[in-house]
Amino acid sequence: MRFGERTVSDGAAQYRFTCGDAPGVLWRPAGAMRPGRPLVLLGHGGGQHKLAPGLVARARRFVADGFAAVALDAPGHGERPRTAADTRFAGEVGELLLAGRPVSAWVVRHSTGLAERAVPEWTAVLDALGEEGEGLGPVGYWGLSLSSGTGITLAAAEPRVTAAVFGLTGGPSLVEAAGRVTVPVEFLVQWDDTLVPRATALELFGAFASPVRTLHANPGGHEDVPEVQLAASEAALTRHLLP
Amino acid sequence: MRFGERTVSDGAAQYRFTCGDAPGVLWRPAGAMRPGRPLVLLGHGGGQHKLAPGLVARARRFVADGFAAVALDAPGHGERPRTAADTRFAGEVGELLLAGRPVSAWVVRHSTGLAERAVPEWTAVLDALGEEGEGLGPVGYWGLSLSSGTGITLAAAEPRVTAAVFGLTGGPSLVEAAGRVTVPVEFLVQWDDTLVPRATALELFGAFASPVRTLHANPGGHEDVPEVQLAASEAALTRHLLP
Repeated sequence: MRFGERTVSDGAAQYRFTCGDAPGVLWRPAGAMRPGRPLVLLGHGGGQHKLAPGLVARARRFVADGFAAVALDAPGHGERPRTAADTRFAGEVGELLLAGRPVSAWVVRHSTGLAERAVPEWTAVLDALGEEGEGLGPVGYWGLSLSSGTGITLAAAEPRVTAAVFGLTGGPSLVEAAGRVTVPVEFLVQWDDTLVPRATALELFGAFASPVRTLHANPGGHEDVPEVQLAASEAALTRHLLP
Repeated sequence: MRFGERTVSDGAAQYRFTCGDAPGVLWRPAGAMRPGRPLVLLGHGGGQHKLAPGLVARARRFVADGFAAVALDAPGHGERPRTAADTRFAGEVGELLLAGRPVSAWVVRHSTGLAERAVPEWTAVLDALGEEGEGLGPVGYWGLSLSSGTGITLAAAEPRVTAAVFGLTGGPSLVEAAGRVTVPVEFLVQWDDTLVPRATALELFGAFASPVRTLHANPGGHEDVPEVQLAASEAALTRHLLP
């Protein structure tokens, strides 16, 4: 893990880093290290990146609650090189969003491939952050849409993740992994999501093995999650991770 | 409205009353009247009554937040006379719960009849409480299962109800009324509810005309709503009703 630029504002220190091939950002409360501090892994949606404004605002809210937070550019996103398939994926998702059509089988396959590439990167980041003294306390994952695919695959395999917020996704390729997730999950559904058919999202929620799981559905499309719902999901994750 | 026994404990005054044929209970903070205080109408489930322990605890939590709260025995419940059909209904619901089977068409019809008898009683209580200086501020409804049928029918017709918590119900007989409900609704679903088929509950949620509506689903059967979810639904109602 190689650290780059460090900035501090409003009590939060923000560090850029690279871990293997993945460029990332770490946020933590400015000041002394605190052993056992909770850490939240923040995923971004398709076509976005580790410093998307909504993600940064979320990271800063978690830091204000005493967490460290970390984000990575997903494969083919942000500062990372794009393959021809990555470029086609971004274009196709954008067009489907505009057209209000469900994602194609090809987009699902590409997303699944992205998740499989991203999971070892998150595992490597957890290992490396441990050497920096972060991530040794409770670890949560917050990520919707594209990053839920990664998060569910990660949570199915990575015992350090002990609570998660997922949503805005569905489909048979994630059902098997969901059946191996046992930690508390809050799962967000948009009732009128034209990108993710409602039945596939509901089926995925039903597939989690987690005894504590809750589905929160609200009206509107893929991009219309109410702010109050986003805030509530952050609060739920905080409750699960703080002693 | 004829008031009976009054008791005070832990800062909450509890009054028994009768309004028309309906025996009820009013709770309010002990001490001076406060104009414009919010009021919550509390419904009870099938076979229960106005002083069921969970309902009383809920009323006291709302009073601690500065609300008045009121409950009525539903027709055929609590202190009220039972027809042969009321008795058959209670027995059949109990058997279906034990057997883990969905409610029959007859039980749905009887519940719909109960709701139609109960709605004018709630309207009369709102009128009468207004003369007592209560219910002139914002009014909410909290009721699951049997009392959601009443609440949805009431909220479709009664403009004084400005926010509601419903759930654990479904079926075509409520879909039309839900389409006339426009106030904020939190709707609870139990994912493994054998009494209310999941698809009918989801369809009912989809039928509300409310721009602000949220569905919260959790694992388990009809009687297994997590305590944390019940508390969150009370908090959501409080947020909608307090200025």
